[in-house]
Amino acid sequence: MGRRASKKIFPNFDKHGRGLRIIRRAAVLGMGVIAAMVEMTGALRDAAADETTGDASMHYAIAIHGGAGTITRGSMTPKRESEYRNKLSEALLAARQILEKGGAALDAVEAAIVVMEESPLFNAGKGAVFTADGRNELDASIMDGATLNAGAVAGVTHVRNPIRLARSVLDHSPHVLLAGQGAEEFARNHGIELVPATWFWTERRFRQLLKVQEKGEHALLLDHDGDHRFGTVGAVVLDAKGNLAAGTSTGGLTNKAWGRIGDSPIIGAGTYASNRSCAVSGTGQGEYFMRLTIAREICALVEYRDMALQAAADEMIHHRLKHLGGAGGVIALGKDGTIAFSFNTEGMYRGWLDSRDPDPKTAIYKD
Amino acid sequence: MGRRASKKIFPNFDKHGRGLRIIRRAAVLGMGVIAAMVEMTGALRDAAADETTGDASMHYAIAIHGGAGTITRGSMTPKRESEYRNKLSEALLAARQILEKGGAALDAVEAAIVVMEESPLFNAGKGAVFTADGRNELDASIMDGATLNAGAVAGVTHVRNPIRLARSVLDHSPHVLLAGQGAEEFARNHGIELVPATWFWTERRFRQLLKVQEKGEHALLLDHDGDHRFGTVGAVVLDAKGNLAAGTSTGGLTNKAWGRIGDSPIIGAGTYASNRSCAVSGTGQGEYFMRLTIAREICALVEYRDMALQAAADEMIHHRLKHLGGAGGVIALGKDGTIAFSFNTEGMYRGWLDSRDPDPKTAIYKD
Repeated sequence: MGRRASKKIFPNFDKHGRGLRIIRRAAVLGMGVIAAMVEMTGALRDAAADETTGDASMHYAIAIHGGAGTITRGSMTPKRESEYRNKLSEALLAARQILEKGGAALDAVEAAIVVMEESPLFNAGKGAVFTADGRNELDASIMDGATLNAGAVAGVTHVRNPIRLARSVLDHSPHVLLAGQGAEEFARNHGIELVPATWFWTERRFRQLLKVQEKGEHALLLDHDGDHRFGTVGAVVLDAKGNLAAGTSTGGLTNKAWGRIGDSPIIGAGTYASNRSCAVSGTGQGEYFMRLTIAREICALVEYRDMALQAAADEMIHHRLKHLGGAGGVIALGKDGTIAFSFNTEGMYRGWLDSRDPDPKTAIYKD
Repeated sequence: MGRRASKKIFPNFDKHGRGLRIIRRAAVLGMGVIAAMVEMTGALRDAAADETTGDASMHYAIAIHGGAGTITRGSMTPKRESEYRNKLSEALLAARQILEKGGAALDAVEAAIVVMEESPLFNAGKGAVFTADGRNELDASIMDGATLNAGAVAGVTHVRNPIRLARSVLDHSPHVLLAGQGAEEFARNHGIELVPATWFWTERRFRQLLKVQEKGEHALLLDHDGDHRFGTVGAVVLDAKGNLAAGTSTGGLTNKAWGRIGDSPIIGAGTYASNRSCAVSGTGQGEYFMRLTIAREICALVEYRDMALQAAADEMIHHRLKHLGGAGGVIALGKDGTIAFSFNTEGMYRGWLDSRDPDPKTAIYKD
C-alpha cells in the first residue's frame, strides 16, 4: 500500500507520514501482520481525530483591542489615527505569523500584546500611565482555554513586557497571580527582561498625570478630554488546533492610589478563556468588571444559556455594566471563530482577522 | 382611621408608622383628600413590597467555614475538637445577634469572620501561617449581594482584622482590590486597627513553617500531617430583608513565595454574592478556585442552569475541581435560605444556623 493508495482510501492517513512510517517499521522489524494492524488501528484513529478537528482546525482567528474610552473623530488627527491603526495591524500580523505556521493560541496572544506593550500609544508596557505618586505599576494576565491554566502579575514596576511575565507564571509557577516585588523576583529567576523604572516615563502620560492632579479629579471619575481613558490592551485567539486563549495588559488608571489592582490581572474579570465556550479580554472601569466577573460571565452566558457570542457580550456591556454605571468594552472569540466586539464608550481601538480573510482590519469609533 | 384600624385592614401598613404619619401629615397640612390618597397609594405599594419579601424576609441564615483539608478524627484530640467547635459557635452567635435585630447580612458576615480572625485556631488574622521569608501576609474580601459592591485586600501585614479593612474598602473606596502598603495606608486613613507584625507570630504556625522548609516541600504540595491545609475562614449570610452577603479571610499558604495572591481576595474565585442567585465562600488550593472562578460559577449554575444549590456546589467541587486535580471546599447559601456545604477533602470546619433552628450547629469531618 503506497503513499497514494493510503491517501486515496484514508485521506489524511499519512499526514505527517505517520501511516507510512508505521508500515515500514513493521516490515523492518519483521513484526507480524497482526501487530502491524493493531498499530495501524491506533494510527487510523489518530488520523481520524486529526480530521475531526480538521476543517474547523484549519481555521484561526484573532481579535485585539487597544483600550476603550471617549475616542471621537474630533479628538483625533489623521496622523494620530493612522499611528493607532498601523500599530494594531502590526500586532495582528505578529499573531498571524504564528498561527499560519500552526502555532499555539497562547503564543499568538503573547506576540500581539508584546507589540502593543512596546508602543507608547497604549496604556500598557512602555506607554503605561502614572500612579498618584508618579510611578508606573503594570498588570497583566493570560489564560489557556485548553487547560484553563492561567498566569497573572500585578503591580510590577520594572518588567518591560508584563504579558511575558504572566506567560512565564503560567508556564513555570504553581501559582496564578504574583504581585509586586515577589513577581519581579520571579521575573529575575525566569529570564524575563527587567528595565529601569524610567523606561516607562513618557512625556504624554506625565502631562496627563499633572493635568488630572491639577484638576484634583479622582482617577475613576476623570475624563482625559478626548484621550482614551481605558487604554488597556488585549488579545483573543483561536488557533488551528481549535484552542482558545486570551490575554490582557495594562498600566492601570492615571493617578491611581493605594496599590489598587484592577480587572486586568484577574482571571474571570478582565481575562478569560475556555475551549468550552469562548475567550474574552476587557477594557474599562475595572472595578465593575471585577464585581460582574465580566469575562467569565460572557462565556457562562454562551455555555449555560446558549446565547450567541455577540448577544452575550452586549448583555454584559450594554445592560449589566451600564446598569451599574460602568463604562468599557470587550473583545470576544467563540470556539467556532466568531468574533464579537462590544463597548458602551465612544470608541474602542480594535483589530481583527481570520484565516478566511487574513488581511488586518482595524476600527476605532462606534459608527 | 386609627392605628388599630389601619393594622387590621392593611397588615404591615403602618409598619414603621408610615401610614399613620402620612395621614397625620395630610390633616395637619390641610391637604385635600385626593392628595392624601395619592400618597397613601404609594405607602400601600411600599407596604405591599415589604410584605412580598415578608415571610421569606423574616428568615435569616448563616453558614461559616474555618478551612478544609486533611482533618481526620485520628489527628484530633477531644480538647482540640471542642476548641474548634466552640469558636465556630461563637462566630455563628456573633452573626446571629446582628440578624435577630434585623441587621444587615454584610455586618453579620464581618462579625462572624472577626471572631475567627481573632482566634489562633484558624489560618486568618491572628493565626495566619508564615510565608517563605517568615512574614504573615493576609488577604480578605467581602461582597454585598444586593448591590454587587465588593471590597478586598491582599498582602497586608499589619492589619489586625483584614475583613474589616475589606469592608472599609467596600464602603469608602471607589476601588475593589487594594494590595500591600497602599492597602495599609488606606487602613490608616480609615481608622482600621493596625498592629505590629509580631501580633501574628504564633509558635504553632512558625513550627509549621520550619517543618515545611526542612522537608523542602513546596507550599502547594505539602501536607501538614493531619493539620488542616487550607485554614481560610469564611461566612455567607442571608438577612431578614432577603439580602445575601459573603466574605473570606486568609493567611494564605505556609511557605508561600513571590507575593502570591490566592483566591480569597478575588471576587468570583474565593468569594461571591448576588441576590439573584447565591452567596459563596471557598477554601482550598486557591489557584484552582481562580482558574475555575468557583464562587461565581456555583451561582451561575444556579442562575443560568436552574441547578439546586447543593448540586451546583458538588458539580464544582467534586467534578470540575477534582478533574483539574485540586482540593478544597465551599459553603453556599441560596436566596431562599438553603445552605450547602461541599468539600473533597477529609474534613472542613463548618457551622450553620437559621431563624427556624437558631442553635449553632458545627461539624468537622466528612461523615
